[in-house]
Amino acid sequence: MQLLTSTQTDEDIERKFSRRISMLRRSCVRDIMSQTGCGSKLINFAAGQPDPSLFPNKTISRISADILADAHEQPLQYSSTEGYAPLREFITENFLGDMGIKASAEQIILTNGSQQGLDLLGKVFCDPGDTLIMDAPTYMSAIQAFELYQPRFRTLPIWEDGPEIAELRHILRRGPAKFYYTISNFHNPTGVTASLGNRRQTAKLLNETGTLLIEDDPYGRLCFDEECRMPTITSLSNGKNCVMMGTFSKILAPAFRVGWIFAAKEIISRLGVAKQAGDLCSNQFAQRIVWRFLKEHDIESHIVSLCERYRQRRDWMIECMAKFLPCEVHYKKPGGGMFIWAELPPHLSATELLQRTLKHGIAFAPGASFFAETPIESSLRINFTYEDRQNTKKGIRIIGEEIRKMLK
Amino acid sequence: MQLLTSTQTDEDIERKFSRRISMLRRSCVRDIMSQTGCGSKLINFAAGQPDPSLFPNKTISRISADILADAHEQPLQYSSTEGYAPLREFITENFLGDMGIKASAEQIILTNGSQQGLDLLGKVFCDPGDTLIMDAPTYMSAIQAFELYQPRFRTLPIWEDGPEIAELRHILRRGPAKFYYTISNFHNPTGVTASLGNRRQTAKLLNETGTLLIEDDPYGRLCFDEECRMPTITSLSNGKNCVMMGTFSKILAPAFRVGWIFAAKEIISRLGVAKQAGDLCSNQFAQRIVWRFLKEHDIESHIVSLCERYRQRRDWMIECMAKFLPCEVHYKKPGGGMFIWAELPPHLSATELLQRTLKHGIAFAPGASFFAETPIESSLRINFTYEDRQNTKKGIRIIGEEIRKMLK
Repeated sequence: MQLLTSTQTDEDIERKFSRRISMLRRSCVRDIMSQTGCGSKLINFAAGQPDPSLFPNKTISRISADILADAHEQPLQYSSTEGYAPLREFITENFLGDMGIKASAEQIILTNGSQQGLDLLGKVFCDPGDTLIMDAPTYMSAIQAFELYQPRFRTLPIWEDGPEIAELRHILRRGPAKFYYTISNFHNPTGVTASLGNRRQTAKLLNETGTLLIEDDPYGRLCFDEECRMPTITSLSNGKNCVMMGTFSKILAPAFRVGWIFAAKEIISRLGVAKQAGDLCSNQFAQRIVWRFLKEHDIESHIVSLCERYRQRRDWMIECMAKFLPCEVHYKKPGGGMFIWAELPPHLSATELLQRTLKHGIAFAPGASFFAETPIESSLRINFTYEDRQNTKKGIRIIGEEIRKMLK
Repeated sequence: MQLLTSTQTDEDIERKFSRRISMLRRSCVRDIMSQTGCGSKLINFAAGQPDPSLFPNKTISRISADILADAHEQPLQYSSTEGYAPLREFITENFLGDMGIKASAEQIILTNGSQQGLDLLGKVFCDPGDTLIMDAPTYMSAIQAFELYQPRFRTLPIWEDGPEIAELRHILRRGPAKFYYTISNFHNPTGVTASLGNRRQTAKLLNETGTLLIEDDPYGRLCFDEECRMPTITSLSNGKNCVMMGTFSKILAPAFRVGWIFAAKEIISRLGVAKQAGDLCSNQFAQRIVWRFLKEHDIESHIVSLCERYRQRRDWMIECMAKFLPCEVHYKKPGGGMFIWAELPPHLSATELLQRTLKHGIAFAPGASFFAETPIESSLRINFTYEDRQNTKKGIRIIGEEIRKMLK
C-alpha cells in the first residue's frame, strides 16, 4: 500500500469513527444540559435533577474538612477499583440488609453514578447481537449505555401494574436473553410501581429460565404514598440471579457520582476488571464524604425531608397539569420518584412541542428517546422535583398553551 | 424453545459473560492495590502513586468550604457531560497555550482521570479487528482499555531516543491504522524521552499517512533534567490530526479523577456522546476544586516542589539500585516522570521475582503486562515517587537479594 496523502478533512475524521459510535443516539436530556448548564434561566422539566436547596452543603463542608485533616488517611490518593470498603459494607448491612438480602461487601462495587454501572454491565455481558429485554418505555440512558455493545433489544409494554408478564414469557420462549433490565420502583419514565404480584411473576419467570435480572432502583427511597412501598424483585428472588443497582444521586447529591452494583462475586469480579480498564478507580474523597454523611447523620430523616418536599412538588405539578393542560393529554399521578409521564393525542409530536416551548425557555424530555424499539412520538416525561412552584406553574401553563396551538 | 431449568451454577454465569470481558487481561498493579488498599504496610513500587505528603490537603479543605458556601452555584448538582467550562478554558489558555497550540474550550472534554479518556477513545475509534499501533512496552492500562474493543495491536520497540520510526513506517506501509498511541515524555514504563528528531519524524509520518496520533502526557510537567524538556508531538503538528491527553492526577491529586482530552471538535463531540452513555457527567465538585486551585494558587511553584522532591527520590532510587542490585540487572536513569524500567538477565522471570518479594511485603510491576504483543518476561517497572528513603532502601535491598538467589 502507498502512503496516503496529507491533509485531513472532516470526512476523513468521520470515516475513522467506530461503527458503534456512529450508530449511537445522543441523549436529548444531556444535550439540553450541555447547552444550558445548570443554574441557567431555563425552566427545566427535562432532567432528573434533585432540588438543590435540599443539598446539605454545610454538613458536606464540615465533613470534607474532617476527612482532609485526618493525618492517618490518604483521601487524595488513588484507591481500590471496587471502592471505599466501609461504604461497601454500609450498603450491604443497611440498604440490602433492610431488604432482607444477605450479602457481603465483596458483592458490591461502587461506580461513578448508576450510569457507569450500566456501561460496565453492557461491557461485561453484551456481545453484538445478544438479546437484551427492556421495558417500553425505559430509562433512555440505559438504552444508550447498552446500545454501544450492539445488542438486539426486545421490549415489554408497561401497564398500570408493571411490565407485561405475558410478553416477557413470550420473549423468553423464543430464545435466551442476556438479561432483563427494569426499574420496579417509580419507573423511569412512566412513574409506574410494579405490583407485588407482577414482581413475583417476574422473579419466578426469570428464575425458571435462568435469565439474569438487572434491577435498577434509583428512586425506591423516594416513596410518597405508603401503598407503593414494595419489596424489590431482587429481594423476592433472595438475590439469586439478580444484579441490583442503587445510587446516592437522588438521596444525597448527584455531583459525588456514587452509585453501586450488588451481584454475585463472579460478576463483581468481572465488573472490577472492566472498571480497571475504564477509569482505574473512582474518587475516594467523594466516597468518603458519602460514607461519613451516612455514619454521622441520620440519612433516614434526610430522606423523610426529601419525600416531604417532593410529595408537595408532585401534588403541585399534578394541580398545574390539571389546570393548564388540555383534557386530551393523559397522565397518572406517580406514588414516588421524580417523573410524570404524559401522552398527547397520537397525532401530535412531543419533539415539535419541545421546539416550541424551548423558545419560551421551557424544557421537558420528549418520550420517543425512551423506547428501544418503536417510539411513541406523542409521549413526554416531566420532572417535578427540580423547579419551584412559580416556575412549575409558568412552565406548565406555557406547555398547555403550545399544545392547544398544535391541536388547532 | 423450552424454558430452561432452574438453578444457576458458576458455569452458567461464566457462559453469560461477553467474549470481550472473558479475554481481557487484569491489571496486576490494580489487583495489588485492591488487595492491599492504600495506607497498607506494603512497600509499593508497583503503582504510579504520588507522594501523599505533597498533597495540599489544607488548601483543598479551604477551597471546598468556599465552593460549598457560594449560594449562587450548585456544586453538588448534575453538570454538563463535557465538564466545568472554566476549567476547560484554563487548560486551553494555559497548558495548551504554553505549548503554542491554539485551541478553544470546545476542543476539551474532561474525563475521570486519563483512564476514562482511553476507554472513550477506544469506544469512539476502535471496531473489532482495527489496527492500533502501540509502543512495546507501553502503559499497561492503555492496552487494557483498548483491548476491550478487540483491536489488532501492532507494536514499535523503544530505543534510547524514542520509538523506532522505521518500524512505524513499515507498519503504516502495510495498511491503515486507526491511531498510534504513545507517551513522548518520560514514557511509561521505560522512562524514555523521545528526542526532538524522533518527535519530528513521528509527526511527519503520521501526517503524511493521515494517521491519528494519541499523545498521552501525564508526566510532561514532572521534568527533572532541563535537557529533557521537549515540545510535544502535538505541538510540532500544530494539533492537526492529534488527540492529546493530560491529567491532574500527577501534578495535584489522583483522587479527583480529573483528566482531559484535547482534539478536533468533531472528535470531542463523539467522545461526549460516549461519555453521556458512560457516566452522564463527572464530579463537578472535584472539577471546581481543581479549577479554584489553579486560579488562586501558583500551580507552577507547586510543580517545582514536586519536581524537587521527585528528583531526590529518583536519585536515591538509582543510588539504591546501583548498590543493591546485581550488575546483571540493566536500567537507565530517566529525566523525569515516575518510573525506572529494569531488565533482569533474560532467563529470569520478573513475575517469579514478584512472588518472592511479595512474601517480604514488597511490590513492583512485572514488565510482561506492558507489552501488547510478545512480552519480555525478564523486565520490571519500579516507581520511585511514592516510598520514602528508608522504604526504598529496604525494598531494593530485598529485591536485590531475591534476584541473587534466583541467579544461583
